[in-house]
Parts: sequence; C-alpha cells; structure tokens
Amino acid sequence: MTVKVAINGYGTIGKRVADAVSRQDDMEVMGVTKTRPTYEAKMAIGKGFDLYCAVTDNIPKFKEAGIEIKGNLIDLLKISDVVVDCTPGKMGAANLDLYKKMGVKSIFQGGEKHEMIGRSFNALSNYTENIGVDHTRVVSCNTTGLARTLYPVSTEIGIEKVYATMIRRGPDPNNSKKGPVNAIVPVLKVPSHHGPDLKTVIEGIDIDTMAVAVPTTLMHLHTIVAKLSRPSTTEEVTSIWERTPRVTFVSGGEGITSTAQIMEMARDLIRDRSDMNEIVVWKDGIHVVDDHLYYYQAIHQESDVVPENVDCIRAMFSLTEDNMASIEKTNKALGIN
Amino acid sequence: MTVKVAINGYGTIGKRVADAVSRQDDMEVMGVTKTRPTYEAKMAIGKGFDLYCAVTDNIPKFKEAGIEIKGNLIDLLKISDVVVDCTPGKMGAANLDLYKKMGVKSIFQGGEKHEMIGRSFNALSNYTENIGVDHTRVVSCNTTGLARTLYPVSTEIGIEKVYATMIRRGPDPNNSKKGPVNAIVPVLKVPSHHGPDLKTVIEGIDIDTMAVAVPTTLMHLHTIVAKLSRPSTTEEVTSIWERTPRVTFVSGGEGITSTAQIMEMARDLIRDRSDMNEIVVWKDGIHVVDDHLYYYQAIHQESDVVPENVDCIRAMFSLTEDNMASIEKTNKALGIN
Amino acid sequence: MTVKVAINGYGTIGKRVADAVSRQDDMEVMGVTKTRPTYEAKMAIGKGFDLYCAVTDNIPKFKEAGIEIKGNLIDLLKISDVVVDCTPGKMGAANLDLYKKMGVKSIFQGGEKHEMIGRSFNALSNYTENIGVDHTRVVSCNTTGLARTLYPVSTEIGIEKVYATMIRRGPDPNNSKKGPVNAIVPVLKVPSHHGPDLKTVIEGIDIDTMAVAVPTTLMHLHTIVAKLSRPSTTEEVTSIWERTPRVTFVSGGEGITSTAQIMEMARDLIRDRSDMNEIVVWKDGIHVVDDHLYYYQAIHQESDVVPENVDCIRAMFSLTEDNMASIEKTNKALGIN
Amino acid sequence: MTVKVAINGYGTIGKRVADAVSRQDDMEVMGVTKTRPTYEAKMAIGKGFDLYCAVTDNIPKFKEAGIEIKGNLIDLLKISDVVVDCTPGKMGAANLDLYKKMGVKSIFQGGEKHEMIGRSFNALSNYTENIGVDHTRVVSCNTTGLARTLYPVSTEIGIEKVYATMIRRGPDPNNSKKGPVNAIVPVLKVPSHHGPDLKTVIEGIDIDTMAVAVPTTLMHLHTIVAKLSRPSTTEEVTSIWERTPRVTFVSGGEGITSTAQIMEMARDLIRDRSDMNEIVVWKDGIHVVDDHLYYYQAIHQESDVVPENVDCIRAMFSLTEDNMASIEKTNKALGIN
Repeated sequence: MTVKVAINGYGTIGKRVADAVSRQDDMEVMGVTKTRPTYEAKMAIGKGFDLYCAVTDNIPKFKEAGIEIKGNLIDLLKISDVVVDCTPGKMGAANLDLYKKMGVKSIFQGGEKHEMIGRSFNALSNYTENIGVDHTRVVSCNTTGLARTLYPVSTEIGIEKVYATMIRRGPDPNNSKKGPVNAIVPVLKVPSHHGPDLKTVIEGIDIDTMAVAVPTTLMHLHTIVAKLSRPSTTEEVTSIWERTPRVTFVSGGEGITSTAQIMEMARDLIRDRSDMNEIVVWKDGIHVVDDHLYYYQAIHQESDVVPENVDCIRAMFSLTEDNMASIEKTNKALGIN
Repeated sequence: MTVKVAINGYGTIGKRVADAVSRQDDMEVMGVTKTRPTYEAKMAIGKGFDLYCAVTDNIPKFKEAGIEIKGNLIDLLKISDVVVDCTPGKMGAANLDLYKKMGVKSIFQGGEKHEMIGRSFNALSNYTENIGVDHTRVVSCNTTGLARTLYPVSTEIGIEKVYATMIRRGPDPNNSKKGPVNAIVPVLKVPSHHGPDLKTVIEGIDIDTMAVAVPTTLMHLHTIVAKLSRPSTTEEVTSIWERTPRVTFVSGGEGITSTAQIMEMARDLIRDRSDMNEIVVWKDGIHVVDDHLYYYQAIHQESDVVPENVDCIRAMFSLTEDNMASIEKTNKALGIN
Repeated sequence: MTVKVAINGYGTIGKRVADAVSRQDDMEVMGVTKTRPTYEAKMAIGKGFDLYCAVTDNIPKFKEAGIEIKGNLIDLLKISDVVVDCTPGKMGAANLDLYKKMGVKSIFQGGEKHEMIGRSFNALSNYTENIGVDHTRVVSCNTTGLARTLYPVSTEIGIEKVYATMIRRGPDPNNSKKGPVNAIVPVLKVPSHHGPDLKTVIEGIDIDTMAVAVPTTLMHLHTIVAKLSRPSTTEEVTSIWERTPRVTFVSGGEGITSTAQIMEMARDLIRDRSDMNEIVVWKDGIHVVDDHLYYYQAIHQESDVVPENVDCIRAMFSLTEDNMASIEKTNKALGIN
Repeated sequence: MTVKVAINGYGTIGKRVADAVSRQDDMEVMGVTKTRPTYEAKMAIGKGFDLYCAVTDNIPKFKEAGIEIKGNLIDLLKISDVVVDCTPGKMGAANLDLYKKMGVKSIFQGGEKHEMIGRSFNALSNYTENIGVDHTRVVSCNTTGLARTLYPVSTEIGIEKVYATMIRRGPDPNNSKKGPVNAIVPVLKVPSHHGPDLKTVIEGIDIDTMAVAVPTTLMHLHTIVAKLSRPSTTEEVTSIWERTPRVTFVSGGEGITSTAQIMEMARDLIRDRSDMNEIVVWKDGIHVVDDHLYYYQAIHQESDVVPENVDCIRAMFSLTEDNMASIEKTNKALGIN
C-alpha cells in the first residue's frame, strides 16, 4: 500500500514533512497547500509538488502571479488518505471537523491542544497506542525532545521526578519581525505547558518545567535534572542514549561549545536544509551524582518532529510491525544515522 | 570614624562602588586606579576622584593624554584603611600579598576564588562572620542573587534542596567584542560554580546549578526550584520576600514581561546609571505547589553587589551594630527602597 | 508667562518630555495621559504628575488598579495652553482636529506626516519659521540628527548633495516582542523617508537616504557622505561642530568604539534615564577629502528630540528672542553641555 | 590535465573550496590540513579527504584522538600543483615563501593584502590578467560582491563614482565567542579597506566605502549609490544584472524582506551547507533616478568566493578559453543557476 498524503500548510514544518514523505517508498505526497502566492509557493512547484490553495478566494492571486493551482483544500483531501495539518496553531479545531467530514485521517502538530484530539504521538514512547487510529497529534519539538531522552531512562532505570528549564529560541530563523532583541523573557505560568504535554506521550511521568525565550533563532536548549528511582552512573545513562535512535552526542571538548556549532555540524553533514533531526546531547555535559541525572540537550525546533510525522503515518496505517521498524526505515530514508 | 577607602580598578564594578562609597557618611574614597588613559580615566577625574595609576610604567601615557595622576597603587594604599579590589578576575592572589604587606584590609569580588581568602560575604546571610576581619570577598552577582532570596526562605521555612538554572547575559552592555551573537552556550561543568559558591555564604545549603550564556547584555535570569522542608503556599513565600531587603517584585500582568522592561523601570526610577541594585522577582511567577517552590528572578550583574561592598566595609570596621542597620543605612544613601 | 503643557501619551517620548518640561522655569506640566493602568501609569503618579485617561471607557480599570485619574483628555486640554502629542504614530490626524476644536496649540512627533500639519520644527535650522505658530511637528530622531550636523555645514561651507545610510536599531530597549533577532532588514523604498523629511526643516537640501534595520536596541547610526560646495578640511568641519550645540564628539582612540560604549558613557554622566540628547559624532571618523566629507554619527532615538520639544514650545509662545537663547536655556536645565 | 589541489586550512572557506573542487572534472583534492584534532578534522576524513597536519608537533594529538594523518604540510605540497591557502588572515606572507620554495602555485584569500602578492582575482572582472600566473589572491567576500554588480554596469553604462556602506555581520554563524551582542560598531578608518580593494580587480574605479559591524551572523548587506556616466533607467540596470552570472534577484514583494529570508531560501534550494554563492540583489530595491543608481545587495560571506577559487585555478592553469567558459562550468558543477 502507498499511503496518499496531503500536506495542509507549506511552511516551516509542512515543507519539511513534504520532502520527508517524498523520500519514503510506502507513501507519496498528493499535494501541498499555500494561502498566498509567496516565493515559497513557487518553490513548492519548483520541487514538483502539486499546489492547492487553502483559501479559495485567493486562487486568482496565484494565477496573477503565474503560479499554477490544482484546486482548493477540499479537492486535495478528496484524493488523499491522510492529511498532515501544518497550519499555524489554533486553526486545528476547525480543520478537524472538515477532515472528519471528508473521511480522511489527520495528523496535527504540537501547536494544537491534546484535548482537541484526545491523542498524541511520539515514535519512541507510544507508537503502539496510535496504531490504526484516525486522528492524532505529533507533540511539539520540545516535548519530542524530552520524550526521546527521558523515555528510555524511565524504562531502564526509572524516574521519580524531572525538573527542566527550556531556554527557547525567540523566532525561527526566517522570521525577522519577532524578538526579543536584547532580553530574556520568562514564561510566568509554572509549570510551563511542556511538562503536562510530556504526560500525553509518557504516562505518569512526574515533570515540572519552567521556560524562557532568548534572542537566538537556531535551537532550543534544555537544562534537565532527573531524580532517578535508584543510583546510577554517568556511564549507564550515556550507554542508554547511545542505543537510543534520534539522540546524538556532541562534545564540548571537540569544539562543539554552543548551539551555533551544532548547526554548523548539521551544515557540514550536508543534510537537507542543514537540519538536525536528532536531539543533541552534550556527552561531556551528562553528570550522574548518586540518584540525580543532570544533562543539557539541544532541540532543532524546525526539524526534530519531521521524522515523527512520517512514523505517525505508518502507525495510523499499520505499515510496519512496530515502532523500531518504522524509525529505522524513516531514518535510513532521511540520512539520520 | 571615617573609613578611608581605595578602589583598585575603576571598571564596571569599581566605578559604581566608588560612587556608592561617596554617598555614605562613614567612609570616603581616597582614590581610584586605572591602568590606561581611556575616557573612563577622564570621567573619574571629572567626578572629582583622585586618580592613581596601577601600572607605574604607564604614568607617562596619562600625562601625554593630559590626565593628572596622583601616584601609583602603593601611594594610594599608603593613605587608605581598606582597598576594594575591582580588578579583572584572577589577579587577586597577587594583589592580596601586596595588601597584606601594606597593612590594608581588602575586599575582593566574586571573580576571585573563595579558597584564596578563606572567607566570603553576603550582607543578609553572613554579615556577622565578617565583623572585624581583614580580608574577605563579596560573592558574585549570581551568588548574591541566590543568597538574597534563598536565605530568608531557608531560615523561615527550611530548604531541602535547590535546583537552579542560571541564564546568563553574554557580555556586559559596554562590551561590543564578546558574543554570543546567535547561540546558546551551555556551561558543561555540572554543577556550575554558582552552587558551590552559595555554600560559602549559606552554610550547608544543598544546591545544584546549571548555566547557559545567551545573546543579551542586560541581566541574568534564574529559574529556581526549591524543595522546601515542609509544605508552604505562594502567599507565605511572597510575604517573606516582601519583608526582605534588596528583593523587589515586578509583575508580568502590569507589563514587565522581560529583563528589558525591568531595566526600563530602573531608568524610569532615575537611578544612577539606570542600575537595579535589588534582586527582581516576578510576583506572578512565584508558584508553591505543596513543598515545591518555583520562581524566576533577574539579576543586574553590574550593580547588585555594589551595596554589598559598602556593607562589607562596615562589617570589617564594625561600623554598625548588625547587618540590618548597615543594609538600611546603605539603602537609604543609594535610594534603594 | 508660564506655559501650561499637556502631554498626550506617556510612553518613550512622552515621559521624557514631561520630565524635561518640569525642569524649565517658563513652562509646567498640567498632566499626562495613559490609556491603560500599567506600571508606567503608576510611575507617572509617583513622579507627581496628574494622570488623565485618554480612553474614557478605561477609567474604571485604573480605579480597579488603585490608580487615581483626574479626568479624560478633554479635561486636560481645557486647562492647557499647548499639548505635546506623543501618541503612537498615525493617530495624529484625528487628534489634530480635536486640538483645534479645543483651541489648544499642539506639537506632533516625527511619526506623523509633515503634510498633515504643513509645518515642521528643528531648533537649529528653522526655529524662526515656527515662532507664534499654533500647530507644528518636531521631526523624527533621525531627521533631527541629520539637521544638527548638516545644517551648520550647509551654512558655513555649502552642501551640493548628501548620501546617507541609516542603520537603525530594531526595537526600542523596552520592547521585547519586536525583532529582528539575527537579520539585516533593508528599507526597499529609495530614498527612504528620512531624506525628504530633512527638507521640511532645511529648505532646498539635496539628500538621498537608504536605510536598514539591525538587531540592536540602543541607537541608530548614520554613515554620511556630503559633497561640499567647495574643498574643505577635516579641521574646518570639526571646528564647525565644536561650535554646534547638541553635537558632541567621542573618540574610538579613547575607547568609544561602538554605540554600546556611547550609551555606557551616558550612564557614567548620570543623565536621567542614561539618555544621550546630543548627536554623537566620532571625531576620528570625520574625514574630508577635497570636497567630500565622510562621517559617522550615532542617534539616541529615545531622547534626541526631547530638548527640541521644549524649544518648540518656546518658539510657539515667543518665549525667547531667538533659537540660540532657547537652546542654551533648555540645555542648561537638562544638563546638556 | 587534472590539476592536483591542496587545501591549506580546513575552516569556513577551506572546507567549502574542498567540496567545490571535488565536484569539478578537471581538478582534484589531494588533501586538506588542520592544526588541531577537532570534530572538523574528523568530518574531513568522513568525507574522504586525506588529512595533513599543518603543525608537525601536533601530529601525536591527532593520533591520540584516533584521527589518521597522512603527513605534514610539506608532504601535501610535494604532491600538489597548486595550494589554496585558507589559513586565518595574516599568515599568508610566511606561507608564500614556503609555496615558492616548494614550487607550487598558490591562491590566497581576501584576508591577505594585495601588496603581498601584487595580484588579485575576480572571475568576472579580471580573469584574463590571471591566466598562467603562479601566485594570486581571490578578493574578499565583500569585494567580490562589489565586483560582480559594479563591473558589468561600469562596462555597459559607465560609472563616475561609487559610495557604498558595508553593513557587516559580526561573527560567522559558527563563532559563538565574538560579538557585538547589542551594538553597532563603525569602522572609523575612511574609506574602509573595501574600496581600495575593489581597485585591485577593477582598474580605475572610483569608490569610497564606509563600514559598520552589527549583531548578526548570516550575511553582509551593502547599500550602494553609483553615479553613472550617463542617465539610465531601473529597467536597463536590472536587465544588465539579469545577464550577469552569480548575481541573483529576490523580491521584498514576494516575502524576502531580510537576509534571514534569503538564507531560508538557500536552505529551501537544498544547496550544500545551505550556502548562497550568488550576490543577492533586491529587485524592488533597485532605483535609478537620472544618473544615480541606488541598490541593496546581500553577500553570503561564507560562500560567495568559493566558485571564484575554482575559476582562479582554471585561470592559473589555462584550463578554459575564457572566464565565461569557466564560470559556466563551475556554476553547473555547483548547482548555481
């Protein structure tokens, strides 16, 4: 079976999911949507994607700009098995009704609330719960990051409590209007939404998170303290993550001293868009003292959820036996080691 | 008694301590030192301070630039009772020998190691231990911030363990050579030095700290979780800090949503150099859940230790009965509420 | 005569103009307006200003927040001779009608278009044209900067043509929402509005400007090339600006190598809000080659127009003989050398 | 003939030149050098390049780190026809003597002075002058940018005088130690070195440049005014650049409003390292008014000189008939349109 995939919203996440789906042999992109005739719309066509207009009234503007439109969102949904909704946050509820009415499965992103769908997805921690389901949600970039490193530690060692601070990039790299320029902005609601969100994919985990936004565009960085269920060692935790897919190590000792050098490494690896799909843990920043684990991890907010969307499609259509089979297949297609 | 004070190093901290000492009625500035004839040297003279040259060989350069020099460091020490050493970090050990030899008391800053002196100072938490001593060290801006908010909670409620993340400004505002420009830089040594440093002024406190540097110049920001010795409430902790000197509240609800607005508030208060000597806690960011206290505080790295240096001089010369008398006197002179 | 001044809008410019007017002996602040009960509203009252609410419907919100309101904008205008309109840009046209109806003189800021009023003001270049007028506009911070340095050169030497690039700060320091974080943003309309705007206060000057916004909050910086009417020398131009009020020199050679060090100098000068009301020219960045003048100047966007507003009030009420008398009086009251 | 190429210095430029040379069919990479065993050294080997150690004494450190070294710089030069020197600036003079002694041709980068070699290179403007030469220098990223857009205008229309302001990124993206964080830093020497440097590749052009550094990592941006030899039109100049290789247009109207969106476009084009080898001109930022041309161009400092180095090798070994043949061949191999 080749799953027919619609991408609703061809922005930061949507364009990456479109490319990632294109690289799989068990699914295909039926089309992508844009609302306005920007250069990104032209690029979508340049890459060979069929373009649909999410706002029917805007179709003439595309024609004026010389951009070919295949139809509207409804037309795209009609020929698709599943839609990956990558529209800006808070539009999801309205879209969900439409998808249900049209009889297509749907995947939302972390900007939408779990409660709207009643189900969330992380390939490592709860793939099984999403097998065959019709509608679900890939958790946000930060929650995906927490799930990837905390889930294996929680199953192999056990975690009593997690305290994490999320130091978030301000805007994405292509957003030159948003700040902050020279400030640190705390998220005064405590715990921040990241903690509760993790519980939607790791049942029962006890985590409290605080968050700030800072003037950088590249990556989020988490400082994490986990109180383990028993004493452990730096070596044991390191060994767990060495075996965990989509977690990779860097070392300050070898010159990777900031998020900037991580993104440079991604460029040197000649990845598409210089992305870093893995969660990046500083190997020389892991410290276990008795039953306390301390570590730093960096999250590429633009791309860590991209392979998760691919795996999510596989779960919804039961395309592979289990999560590891899908993760391996996706990673191979995307050049993730 | 009027204590005669030398300021060795007229940079970010030194120039502020000089002004602060000048505003007290029980101490006076005998002179300040510079190593090179920059505009700051001119400003020192413009403010009426006697200028001494810390590097004897450079005295002719000052003359060439038309800047009057009263003598060298030794000359200044000869006429002083105490020297506040505000030289760049790591020069302290050499200086300490000189100060001892010259028979002047000395105060170092947080850039020097506690071990070098064997003694550290925070006005709130260990003033008494510094009464009459000859040499001590005012702890760093970050440690001062931790001491001011954690000490009263530890004495009134009790603290079992503190987890804190220090989100540090990159360079000071007047440094246009240092970065980072667009990155987050983790301090891979865990715990970072801030935790152990706190123990030099609050005996026995159990704290682990992690730290990152980010692209901002204004303030440090701490995210702090304290496991209390017993359940408490947001109201109780808020009430403690309302009674704590040099801790002040701001509110996101009233529009102070970042370190930038805090510094704007300091400008509106018409403080010298637009400084904010208090530790600033977001009132609507304090959350106590059972026995866990969560809060955000901002630290003005250029100025929070300035009143501490004044109090430290009082302790060393037994000028006031106790710490509260000194704190109140200093605050009044500096316009700290 | 003591001119009764209303300040409509107590934001970045309004709060500074209020303080500046308070420091003069021939004018007084009758009240300031805010639309919402933020901490700035509290600060206005703390400073002793009567507070009026510009949006009548919001008055109850102030009462809830415990902030005393004297009345609405109309009430304030009734007791005032002139209103300084410091509301956000583009609201001016509506306000002008109100001011005319209420019979108060009015001063607008550079965010409003010259065409709306038909008249603009710069103390140095066209004070005389504004004597006795009822409504005028103080030109923007950038235009004020251009006028201060170019006008005296144009009268003493003559200028054929000016090419200037304005490198603008992104947001103001207290704005943590606006960017850009890591980008340079060109103003694609050429010439940018700064060139034509200068012609409203220096008749007949031939200037073309280009502009970009960059990720900093402190100051604008201009790179300026002026083709002079005759050959000149660096010394001649330097000498002209030494005699020009509100133009001050800094020197890279003395350590002022960026806008950051300029603002640090302003802090060291212990100015209100650490402002720098003067246009700052790098003395070692002035280069005259034959008939071409090259120079760099920095503009403190928050404060350079503040003394201009004071002078403008004097012109409108014929309070001093000429512009130099007013400039000198204002400067003395504000501590501008 | 297949030219054997050594790359001395595998940093920002060196690693890109290595990849670019690898993609050509008339030259091959014999090896690259590193001085220390960083992750970049590992990456070079991962890409299949032979690694040589530029500092013989450091070879044991590479062995300790498990990185295979083929020899030292001399060993590499022995087997090469030409060396592309991509070492940090100011080391070139010493290296030139070595290269001459070893009998290898050499290409230096823009960080070295023209006077040291007496010859400079730009593929568009002076390829012919470099045919068959033994030692030359590819001009800097900024000069390359000026040459690409100004040379064709100077030949087709004629240029009397150019005034340009270079708004430079602070550090490169992978440098998290350098600033400025929140400042604009002027280059007080006027004209800045960019103007004179352009004359090394376009004889007789009259240009004066001023420069500032700003807190961004992505690209330089130039604001340029050219006084033409005769009146022209926006259409004429646009048409010239449409025919110019390695100059590309973007449009603010289509959503490319800053250097950030340009780099995002480069990522979407799936270029190696998300580079943008072309000079990028805002099409809707070109304005010709009578005999004055105004435009904005953005320069990707990490990569615009990379194809120039390839062409330079061709010139030195007379591999193609003329510059256009080489430019076309290089562009095709690198995916430059």
